[in-house]
Amino acid sequence: MRRFAIVGSKASASDDFSLDDLPGTSGRLDVLVRCVRTALLHSHGVRRDAVVYLLLLGGPRAPRTLRFDGASAKFLRPDERALATLVKKSLASHADDEASGFVEVRQGVAAARGGVEAVLADAPGAKRYVLDEGGTDVRAIDLGDEDALFFVGDHLGLAQEVRDAIGAATEISVGPVSLHSDDVVAILSNELDRARVTTRRRS
Amino acid sequence: MRRFAIVGSKASASDDFSLDDLPGTSGRLDVLVRCVRTALLHSHGVRRDAVVYLLLLGGPRAPRTLRFDGASAKFLRPDERALATLVKKSLASHADDEASGFVEVRQGVAAARGGVEAVLADAPGAKRYVLDEGGTDVRAIDLGDEDALFFVGDHLGLAQEVRDAIGAATEISVGPVSLHSDDVVAILSNELDRARVTTRRRS
Repeated sequence: MRRFAIVGSKASASDDFSLDDLPGTSGRLDVLVRCVRTALLHSHGVRRDAVVYLLLLGGPRAPRTLRFDGASAKFLRPDERALATLVKKSLASHADDEASGFVEVRQGVAAARGGVEAVLADAPGAKRYVLDEGGTDVRAIDLGDEDALFFVGDHLGLAQEVRDAIGAATEISVGPVSLHSDDVVAILSNELDRARVTTRRRS
Repeated sequence: MRRFAIVGSKASASDDFSLDDLPGTSGRLDVLVRCVRTALLHSHGVRRDAVVYLLLLGGPRAPRTLRFDGASAKFLRPDERALATLVKKSLASHADDEASGFVEVRQGVAAARGGVEAVLADAPGAKRYVLDEGGTDVRAIDLGDEDALFFVGDHLGLAQEVRDAIGAATEISVGPVSLHSDDVVAILSNELDRARVTTRRRS
């Protein structure tokens, strides 16, 4: 299982944003929905072994997290507007208001109160990685085939309090240039795809 | 210089499409504009050494090609709607109707009649690569620091007549899973970023 937790520092935790101006009205949910596409979709379908968490730390209902699960997701479309529409409909739900942990609000999409702590509670056994420009090159690390959880910052990076909440984690980087979050997810996914082939060849 | 030529098999060569339903009305220009973001933008600005060609082989004014040049591009925004708006405005121009080669139609954006042949004429000295799932792993190739031109198919892949028009080229792949075009561009860009560091260390 591969899990990506994308931290939206100011991303809207409510459905109060405009699909016609996503970057300007949603605290940059455009960055986050692009990561959903990259993590869950390949050329001819859905990555069934991938999960994406969008940590929504901005606006009236924050902190709140949406979880997209490749194993049960249906009708995922790759374009930003379609994904943002799915996010908007999911955020309109109040099913998670009083719940503990994730509650499914659409097919394959669940919502929970909280940010980092909700993600960690949902993936207790996963090995934690934090994307950091000063981290170890991902190519020097054996990603193996284990349950892995990658925390990726948005355009504002990871705030210290978010980093503290994540706790012990391996800091990794993907190369010499600072990249958009979705490109980081694309490179990590490729690294995991390659690692899996290597692992299978070994066994 | 790194150049990416994204082949839009049915992508609209005219501005007759809706920003509210890009995938459904434009022959999948959404795929192409995502490649523009990936190739030209990093976390804190524009890749000045990158050029993207969008080959628009669908609709009334096809074949036609748009060229986005990182060296002169301005006000590039990363979201699909903003990029599609830029494409729409650029395609409304008729400056390229009778011209030979590329004509600038917006700051950093040029249009030309033709598809593959227009790209090849614009980059005569570039080493040609074609993305192909059966190609050599990009990690086994020395990309060096040269002028490189990568042809990438859209969701429909590269038609044989397009492949024939490209002519002699090195066929490369980026890994074991068939990926969306923009993820391919992200992985190639990362490979080029890493190659450049290696080349500089050597010299």
